[in-house]
Amino acid sequence: MISFDCDYLEGCIPEVLERLQKTNLEQTYGYGADPYSDMAREKIKEAIGNDSARVHFLVGGTHTNATVISSILKAYQAVICATTGHINVHETGAVEHGGHKILALPSKDGKVRAADVDSVFNAYYADPSNIHVVTPGMVYISFPTELGTIYSRSELEDLHSVCRKWNIPLYIDGARLGYGLASPECDLTLKELASLCDVFYIGGTKQGALFGEAVVFTTPGLVDDFAHYIKQNGGLLAKGRLLGLQFDTLFTGDIYSSYSRHAIRLAMKVRDALKAKGIELLYASPTNQQFPVFEDTKLAELRAKGFSFEFWEKIDETHTAVRICTSWATLESNVDALIAAV
Amino acid sequence: MISFDCDYLEGCIPEVLERLQKTNLEQTYGYGADPYSDMAREKIKEAIGNDSARVHFLVGGTHTNATVISSILKAYQAVICATTGHINVHETGAVEHGGHKILALPSKDGKVRAADVDSVFNAYYADPSNIHVVTPGMVYISFPTELGTIYSRSELEDLHSVCRKWNIPLYIDGARLGYGLASPECDLTLKELASLCDVFYIGGTKQGALFGEAVVFTTPGLVDDFAHYIKQNGGLLAKGRLLGLQFDTLFTGDIYSSYSRHAIRLAMKVRDALKAKGIELLYASPTNQQFPVFEDTKLAELRAKGFSFEFWEKIDETHTAVRICTSWATLESNVDALIAAV
Amino acid sequence: MISFDCDYLEGCIPEVLERLQKTNLEQTYGYGADPYSDMAREKIKEAIGNDSARVHFLVGGTHTNATVISSILKAYQAVICATTGHINVHETGAVEHGGHKILALPSKDGKVRAADVDSVFNAYYADPSNIHVVTPGMVYISFPTELGTIYSRSELEDLHSVCRKWNIPLYIDGARLGYGLASPECDLTLKELASLCDVFYIGGTKQGALFGEAVVFTTPGLVDDFAHYIKQNGGLLAKGRLLGLQFDTLFTGDIYSSYSRHAIRLAMKVRDALKAKGIELLYASPTNQQFPVFEDTKLAELRAKGFSFEFWEKIDETHTAVRICTSWATLESNVDALIAAV
Amino acid sequence: MISFDCDYLEGCIPEVLERLQKTNLEQTYGYGADPYSDMAREKIKEAIGNDSARVHFLVGGTHTNATVISSILKAYQAVICATTGHINVHETGAVEHGGHKILALPSKDGKVRAADVDSVFNAYYADPSNIHVVTPGMVYISFPTELGTIYSRSELEDLHSVCRKWNIPLYIDGARLGYGLASPECDLTLKELASLCDVFYIGGTKQGALFGEAVVFTTPGLVDDFAHYIKQNGGLLAKGRLLGLQFDTLFTGDIYSSYSRHAIRLAMKVRDALKAKGIELLYASPTNQQFPVFEDTKLAELRAKGFSFEFWEKIDETHTAVRICTSWATLESNVDALIAAV
Repeated sequence: MISFDCDYLEGCIPEVLERLQKTNLEQTYGYGADPYSDMAREKIKEAIGNDSARVHFLVGGTHTNATVISSILKAYQAVICATTGHINVHETGAVEHGGHKILALPSKDGKVRAADVDSVFNAYYADPSNIHVVTPGMVYISFPTELGTIYSRSELEDLHSVCRKWNIPLYIDGARLGYGLASPECDLTLKELASLCDVFYIGGTKQGALFGEAVVFTTPGLVDDFAHYIKQNGGLLAKGRLLGLQFDTLFTGDIYSSYSRHAIRLAMKVRDALKAKGIELLYASPTNQQFPVFEDTKLAELRAKGFSFEFWEKIDETHTAVRICTSWATLESNVDALIAAV
Repeated sequence: MISFDCDYLEGCIPEVLERLQKTNLEQTYGYGADPYSDMAREKIKEAIGNDSARVHFLVGGTHTNATVISSILKAYQAVICATTGHINVHETGAVEHGGHKILALPSKDGKVRAADVDSVFNAYYADPSNIHVVTPGMVYISFPTELGTIYSRSELEDLHSVCRKWNIPLYIDGARLGYGLASPECDLTLKELASLCDVFYIGGTKQGALFGEAVVFTTPGLVDDFAHYIKQNGGLLAKGRLLGLQFDTLFTGDIYSSYSRHAIRLAMKVRDALKAKGIELLYASPTNQQFPVFEDTKLAELRAKGFSFEFWEKIDETHTAVRICTSWATLESNVDALIAAV
Repeated sequence: MISFDCDYLEGCIPEVLERLQKTNLEQTYGYGADPYSDMAREKIKEAIGNDSARVHFLVGGTHTNATVISSILKAYQAVICATTGHINVHETGAVEHGGHKILALPSKDGKVRAADVDSVFNAYYADPSNIHVVTPGMVYISFPTELGTIYSRSELEDLHSVCRKWNIPLYIDGARLGYGLASPECDLTLKELASLCDVFYIGGTKQGALFGEAVVFTTPGLVDDFAHYIKQNGGLLAKGRLLGLQFDTLFTGDIYSSYSRHAIRLAMKVRDALKAKGIELLYASPTNQQFPVFEDTKLAELRAKGFSFEFWEKIDETHTAVRICTSWATLESNVDALIAAV
Repeated sequence: MISFDCDYLEGCIPEVLERLQKTNLEQTYGYGADPYSDMAREKIKEAIGNDSARVHFLVGGTHTNATVISSILKAYQAVICATTGHINVHETGAVEHGGHKILALPSKDGKVRAADVDSVFNAYYADPSNIHVVTPGMVYISFPTELGTIYSRSELEDLHSVCRKWNIPLYIDGARLGYGLASPECDLTLKELASLCDVFYIGGTKQGALFGEAVVFTTPGLVDDFAHYIKQNGGLLAKGRLLGLQFDTLFTGDIYSSYSRHAIRLAMKVRDALKAKGIELLYASPTNQQFPVFEDTKLAELRAKGFSFEFWEKIDETHTAVRICTSWATLESNVDALIAAV
């Protein structure tokens, strides 16, 4: 079977495994107080060009989102996101479990619009009895979104401005950050993205690490005691160096970017082939997730040939949309086989 | 000023005040273990024709909703309601603060449809990775709804059936229960309504009490330890007899119903007068809340004459919808004055 | 039966009931935005001599404590109190339900000592890995304590200083504040007490109101958005004027103090009589709660005569400690009858 | 430097790393639905001789404890543990953050006594107004305890019986389970321990894995939907096979036991040498944690020679207790060097 279901099917890039092997019997202190975590933090601060940023490492995305959001919001504040936002649909209510309402904005392409954020605030402040209503307290976006789309620089600038206007932080979920930045349609650098938000995370799990996400607080004073929140929420890894080592490796030289580019190149190859075949794509995704609409007979045929995709949605009685993911680990030969089979 | 803004502008019906006066210096044990609370519980059980029901008294609606919902749901379960549901919009995120996501179903008339509940469950169980998604665990409806509408018997039967089908409880927020049951368009009795849900509350605050809501668990075994939840959530009134006394009074003879009918008669008088004047009503409400759309000039004129209404929404540049409420306390002379002014 | 079990057996002082009667059919806006609440806030600010204080009204004590504490603390912070503190033993874990650990300091007389608070902080900051430990974030005391004792001015000054030293707020639970201030052994005025803490509440429920507690934030900027927390926790009373009216009445002229003095005079009469009979008192309480240790035969005899007390603890095989409470409502004739019976 | 500070200083046993290497590029589905997790579950069920047990894998101990406890308890229930229990002192209030009070029983050796549990329940049910008090809902113990001590079979049987008597589950935190079972003083097998509780976890992090703990529910029906709780709390590892692989490796043949025995043999060697030197040990620990009391001058000397220990507590002006840990990774040569230096 050749699976294109998701981007966390394999283990990790060989450079990470090699590092783990080489350092395995070293003794280091736990919970992030090790030299590898320090090195990784420095590399990330350098990569984003912000020496006063604070970098923390967590194990997974849901935990990261829930912890960041609950560390920022007051009890009666809510987080704004798109209806399709990961926190709104695929985290088993972790944000609400932490006590916060999600104000979900309808969105066809997975993106939050600055004008919609503005409307939420205008309505909130126009309501004389808004004490009965949750107070919008931050904006969550994902880059790329859950639909594979990305924000243009100007869209992100607008969002950043509207958040500044209402004095709330903008948080970017970068579970697939590298795949977004490596897209041919992306007009943003990592440095620019980092400067257009208040906190974001750099995905490791889907980007070549065994696991791990690096949270970066770029705005000084936003949350100065984040480690307490991580620990209380059960997310402070005992052998913190495992996270440090992985991010230090990913941010050594061009590793993070080049593996991302590999995934994007193959995704675009798939996309172009599908388009050439006249197969409709559900969203205009320029990143590593593609959402083709197949005839059910075609889909059955592909599956019979050993290809596996994630079911996305039933389009009509004879068509189904699926998700095809590429990643750092995708073999070009598998992509070629898929294209041939289509 | 004559206010029609809401249905909790005045104190309480004179019978309640008299009772408080008469019993003021009696000594009774606290927290609901007093004879008046026992008497009230008995009267309510008789009124609903369910001897094994469990009745608890709380002070206010938001607290009641949050406590009922969190006593029923497991941490990862969500409550289904209409987008306009009180818990979804006007309780400052109390349900989410208690840890639960609200699955809000779009609704134009404030009602939840059985078919929509069915769809939520079908989608949930069709999703092979639904562990990443909150589990729908109960349905919340209000009777009447926040838009003044009421469920017909057949609609409520359908909802009840779909909840039975998926093995989840149906909860009815009856903040204005009496006004719903007293509506000329209501084809349900209190007994029938009680038998078509698993738990509901009988509103006191808006129905003639100084404060207070009576939660009634009709399905045995649903929550047997509700008093612990009330106490832990800070809602166990020390002088519990104040609640007992009020509900005992409301359910003595015809008091609860007759005050409700008074409010409805006046509401219908307003509604008919507005209709006769050709004024549009935003929702087809047969209960004590009416939502007329006034020309802004007309509205300014009415306000200048001393009438006050709650702003509901801006319809267009020259029209505004407001909410007009009647209640047990509304004077017919004020209604007549309003009609004359319109 | 004549009950001395607690201080919330009766309704309210007649002045309150009269006020409720007189204003019953007035129309006022809800949720605290009424003129009576404003008047009460002004009277309280005047009584404590602090014009910039912020006053909020809640219905009951447990709810008040839980809401104040959770509005102040960050998620990973804990509240320090005595092991006997109400929040630690008699609120069904409401503070923990809100997410916070209680750091309970052993105490024989119900009081927290400044030196013990200091030790908690010294230990916390001496621990290099204190990220694994909750951070002490505030101090909770009750005045009088649950054992009837009161803090001297110098004890309170010390506590206030140690809180200032570690930069955390001091919160005083004043469920029986009037009874403490009216004690012959109290060397503090209300103004002084208010100036020696950051937030406190003035008890209504046990002090002559039907219900209600007035939270007073005296330190500017501590919690500026407390009403949001009240609402989210379900504690914003719809007919807020009921709270305003009661506190406005209690703080009119000498009412609050004089009813408190009444209770204390009778409590001291009981205490002196018990002492004269050679009956041991469990705690040296100069307030309205007395804790005599009776021989079990004596206790049975008193109960047979119709007197009722709260069981406190079994002292040995033949002795039992009970709690005797006086209050604003206690009749001197009942106290005299009790003394005669003892 | 040679560190004996804790038992999570190094990476993992070579067998684990080899497994990760060998399977790195295999494609498997996420979140525990992979063949390695299945294999590991089977091996664990076989090892405990309970085919109907349910096994779940989590990343770390604090997260595991908080998730297990909150999946079992109702909101108003509390967990009983020793004052020294890990959940009570070193998890930054994670259990309280999840809403539950900890009822901490004083303990000099880190163990909970059956008689003390019995007393908690007797007091709870003797209190007529226990609705104001948290309900004890489960017992948490650690095996070995945080002080290195272990329960004898008869002690564990007594605890198990008292939990059965009051109908609450017994939960064993086995962060160092292997080290406990490998102790020469242990009279329990893994099978027996598993049958004397309702849920326990097998520690991986401190026992040779990179990370990971295996929760085992042995009592059918206790928590059937634990995966939902894991996910909601952010603990469902995307590449779940990493956990499966590690536990499958640990439970292949004698691996888990033999590495545990290695650590214990070295710990006993240290213990015997310290005793022979007349150095006091703070607790009678027969496991991998030893707590010697050194003269401060001696301690300084050892540190100067490059040995590192965890500070435990100051005994008096000239003595300090430290913690010395051995583990699967401890080199005998380092132990010998330490003994020589002492």
